Amino acid sequence: MFEFTVAATNGAARAGTLTLPHGTVHTPCFMPVGTQGTVRALSPLDLEAAGAEIVLANTYHLHVRPGEDTVAALGGLHRFMAWNRPLLTDSGGFQVFSLEAFRRVDDDGVEFQSHVDGGVRRLTPERAVDIQWALGADVAMALDHVVSGTASRAEVEAALHRTGRWLERAGTRHGELAAAAPERQTLWPILQGGTHADVRATALAATLDAGQWTGIAVGGLAVGEPNDVMHTVVETLEPSLPRGVPRYLMGVGFPEDLLHAVARGMDLFDCVAPTRNGRNGSAYTPDGPLNIRNAAHRQDPGPLDLTCDCETCRSYSRGYLRHLFLAEELLVLRLLSLHNVRFLVRLMHQAREHVLDGTFDPWYREWVTRYRARGES
Amino acid sequence: MFEFTVAATNGAARAGTLTLPHGTVHTPCFMPVGTQGTVRALSPLDLEAAGAEIVLANTYHLHVRPGEDTVAALGGLHRFMAWNRPLLTDSGGFQVFSLEAFRRVDDDGVEFQSHVDGGVRRLTPERAVDIQWALGADVAMALDHVVSGTASRAEVEAALHRTGRWLERAGTRHGELAAAAPERQTLWPILQGGTHADVRATALAATLDAGQWTGIAVGGLAVGEPNDVMHTVVETLEPSLPRGVPRYLMGVGFPEDLLHAVARGMDLFDCVAPTRNGRNGSAYTPDGPLNIRNAAHRQDPGPLDLTCDCETCRSYSRGYLRHLFLAEELLVLRLLSLHNVRFLVRLMHQAREHVLDGTFDPWYREWVTRYRARGES
Repeated sequence: MFEFTVAATNGAARAGTLTLPHGTVHTPCFMPVGTQGTVRALSPLDLEAAGAEIVLANTYHLHVRPGEDTVAALGGLHRFMAWNRPLLTDSGGFQVFSLEAFRRVDDDGVEFQSHVDGGVRRLTPERAVDIQWALGADVAMALDHVVSGTASRAEVEAALHRTGRWLERAGTRHGELAAAAPERQTLWPILQGGTHADVRATALAATLDAGQWTGIAVGGLAVGEPNDVMHTVVETLEPSLPRGVPRYLMGVGFPEDLLHAVARGMDLFDCVAPTRNGRNGSAYTPDGPLNIRNAAHRQDPGPLDLTCDCETCRSYSRGYLRHLFLAEELLVLRLLSLHNVRFLVRLMHQAREHVLDGTFDPWYREWVTRYRARGES
Repeated sequence: MFEFTVAATNGAARAGTLTLPHGTVHTPCFMPVGTQGTVRALSPLDLEAAGAEIVLANTYHLHVRPGEDTVAALGGLHRFMAWNRPLLTDSGGFQVFSLEAFRRVDDDGVEFQSHVDGGVRRLTPERAVDIQWALGADVAMALDHVVSGTASRAEVEAALHRTGRWLERAGTRHGELAAAAPERQTLWPILQGGTHADVRATALAATLDAGQWTGIAVGGLAVGEPNDVMHTVVETLEPSLPRGVPRYLMGVGFPEDLLHAVARGMDLFDCVAPTRNGRNGSAYTPDGPLNIRNAAHRQDPGPLDLTCDCETCRSYSRGYLRHLFLAEELLVLRLLSLHNVRFLVRLMHQAREHVLDGTFDPWYREWVTRYRARGES
């Protein structure tokens, strides 16, 4: 359980297989985000039809509502949301630290005010592990101290040392819980370090010293820094990352960024972009994003994306989708979200196939060139 | 084509079969409403899974947006909304006359202001037929002059005579169009007459004089009058209605009202209630409506309705649905709408089975008693 095998590499790009309690994940892989125990506008059957192999849910959100006790009482997160494939829960760190004005951090943990009821709550490394154990996702994440992309070097280093101490505490607590059920859930650390290559290197060394991990996440990127800076950080970090575990680049992203990260050796990704973009009327196509509101689509009988096999592209014309969007009909939110998720899942599947047959690099360059050439939004 | 056969009766209740260009409709039958060419929050696959055999769409809404020219350019209403089973379009009369402040009626037709762009448009009996012919539903409705439930007898009579004259014009226009494609679409008249039994009788006689109809609609009810008044009007009217065509009671409705109308010889129904109620958190059950917001459902692992076979009841707990509703997640709008539509489709199917085996009356009385006994909203 929790094994990861790399079937092929092509440059830094990897094609892997991750074994989790609820199923197998083929990497590179995009994870749709189900913040509150549901991927916005999509059902589990939609996600299965889109080929999603793993979904991410947010520990912070589920903790404040409905509470991990309720999720556990209703059979755990898989049963709760009727999703029987693998799940990953984040640590809660990113959300808590996004509540800029409403949290106070010390060495023990972080105190924050719930966005739902205003109540003050405390999250510690142990508590984050306990909550995620109760939720029961296949993969849990250790609590990290997230700092903003514009933080000073000193701030980044301080947060890093704290994250390191928290990681040890999280590992200890998780080890206690997992002793009786070692195949229930694994715990992954999150690497911080902002955009400073040497700080990232120190963080990585400390993280690898702290335990034998079955996966490793790269956090603190895709938080507002320029995209090329993010790609450079990943590229610099990659040679030092362990080969035998999946590397999860958190919060990424858009189609191009996924490919840039795959080319730099990353395996797993999550982002709200495909569903959020879909709800805003933006649909991914191989020729760049399409804005369904555009008048050009008014009587267009063609699908969003001629190359796509999703329900939306199989059944509905651009003209109909535009009508639904202008008429503010709920169905279109689902249909565009479904297409965008399917698009990213297929993109990662295609990348994997090209890694396997040794053609990743030319395919990737051509794909990005075409994607950039047009695009409406 | 457009044939209706009655397989059995049980008191006034009937079990029938209606043959339409896109398929067979078993009556009694509830038609979900797809106002703007989509049943709110549901996809055609959802509707098929719910067992819906026919869907209603609104001529007024589709005329003002996207326009029947666009629907026709995109392959007609069936292709447009990717629904391959029968469709019925209403006449536009009810919607236009709901725009109280924004319409002016004369013998030629009615002038109204679009709720979308404020533009002034004119609807005549011929125009309503033309629009519906372009949309291409299996069943079109003749334009009627709708008056409010509180209208005076004189107003009702005047509207009625106008509706009669309009019906002749609609029939003529439809006959011209259908001459070349007689199996494309049929046209049904709408009976008005408010709550006045003798006025209804006059309207019916005039309607039957005006043509050989393949179906007949009872309009001007379910518009605010007390429910028992509505049922009395239907009961009084029923013996005079032709046996050999389906009777469509427009705008009904709630589970109880459907059964009361079936018991009084009605065959077809439409209403936005199941989807609107669903979006408001109300779910039908054999024990009356359930309010998913109620705290009692917080950790309830059971389905909305133990007797139901819909996707919602097969997959999700009340506790999860309550969480989704409180978290304002889009998925719950679909799941509750789906259940409510399935509930009414099944209810009509059950009624049909009981008519066929001669047990409708005791079943109906028991069903209504149980439905009334509890209920949360």
